[in-house]
Amino acid sequence: MKIEGSAKCLVILVGESDHWHGKPLYAAIVERAREMGLAGATVTRGVMGYGANSRIHTTSILRLSDDLPMVIHLIDLEERLRPFIEVLDEMVTEGLVMTWDVQVERYVSSGPKERA
Amino acid sequence: MKIEGSAKCLVILVGESDHWHGKPLYAAIVERAREMGLAGATVTRGVMGYGANSRIHTTSILRLSDDLPMVIHLIDLEERLRPFIEVLDEMVTEGLVMTWDVQVERYVSSGPKERA
Amino acid sequence: MKIEGSAKCLVILVGESDHWHGKPLYAAIVERAREMGLAGATVTRGVMGYGANSRIHTTSILRLSDDLPMVIHLIDLEERLRPFIEVLDEMVTEGLVMTWDVQVERYVSSGPKERA
Repeated sequence: MKIEGSAKCLVILVGESDHWHGKPLYAAIVERAREMGLAGATVTRGVMGYGANSRIHTTSILRLSDDLPMVIHLIDLEERLRPFIEVLDEMVTEGLVMTWDVQVERYVSSGPKERA
Repeated sequence: MKIEGSAKCLVILVGESDHWHGKPLYAAIVERAREMGLAGATVTRGVMGYGANSRIHTTSILRLSDDLPMVIHLIDLEERLRPFIEVLDEMVTEGLVMTWDVQVERYVSSGPKERA
Repeated sequence: MKIEGSAKCLVILVGESDHWHGKPLYAAIVERAREMGLAGATVTRGVMGYGANSRIHTTSILRLSDDLPMVIHLIDLEERLRPFIEVLDEMVTEGLVMTWDVQVERYVSSGPKERA
């Protein structure tokens, strides 16, 4: 798989405690992206937040729940991301999905290394 | 509150040890965003960095201070973010504030769930 | 150093276990950015991911390796980032480098505070 030049960054914000068919939603989203052949995904855990995905929460001693914000980034061509965004319509029942244009300056992969 | 289509992503970079009226600056910024009715905020802690917000620092054994970079993301309509950016002029005495255009593909909220 | 108005955000995705001349690649990239006078860099560690930079991996109990995704953000003027991107061509042998346009709303630095 090759990405070069104009591409899209897709960001999904969900809560850490959101689930999909028995597993964490953020993990289910990453797995689905892999199944659909998207180039990659990166998940980051927030330490505080509020919004569509969650009540206000923090990792401090006053942490109120495990529902911290999880941020998923995917970078790929728009034509590959678009069908995935339709899948997200079903999976994300609370949260935010956004995109913007990026320029891929360099993309180097040694081929399929992922494993379950 | 509803966001759809064209919106802005606002990112604020400050130091973990920066304070505002006795509380961490990043937490004060999130609270102010909530008070001003912005759609949401997500805070991420960096593990290393340098720049406007901080000297070079890392979470490694050579970590020199607690002043790690804190990254705050907010997504909303420009007309709601603009007055908030003016508030940041006063709060952020060292750091970086930037914006870019995004497309909100999906925003689903079950309504106000936040609590103090 | 001053940044105002139109600028670029540069994001680099590499693996935590990637190395460059005996040190972690992400740290080597930040040091090189500092040497080349770039305005700042922020490194975030992902908790899960797959793609150019890595096999699928997670911080969970099923974590398979230490090769978690490391995300490096730099914000600066395009003319300062461009020579740095050429340097990255040599350093990043597996990973993703991308840019997009941002608007710097505020940049306040008290001057050079970084130390080794």
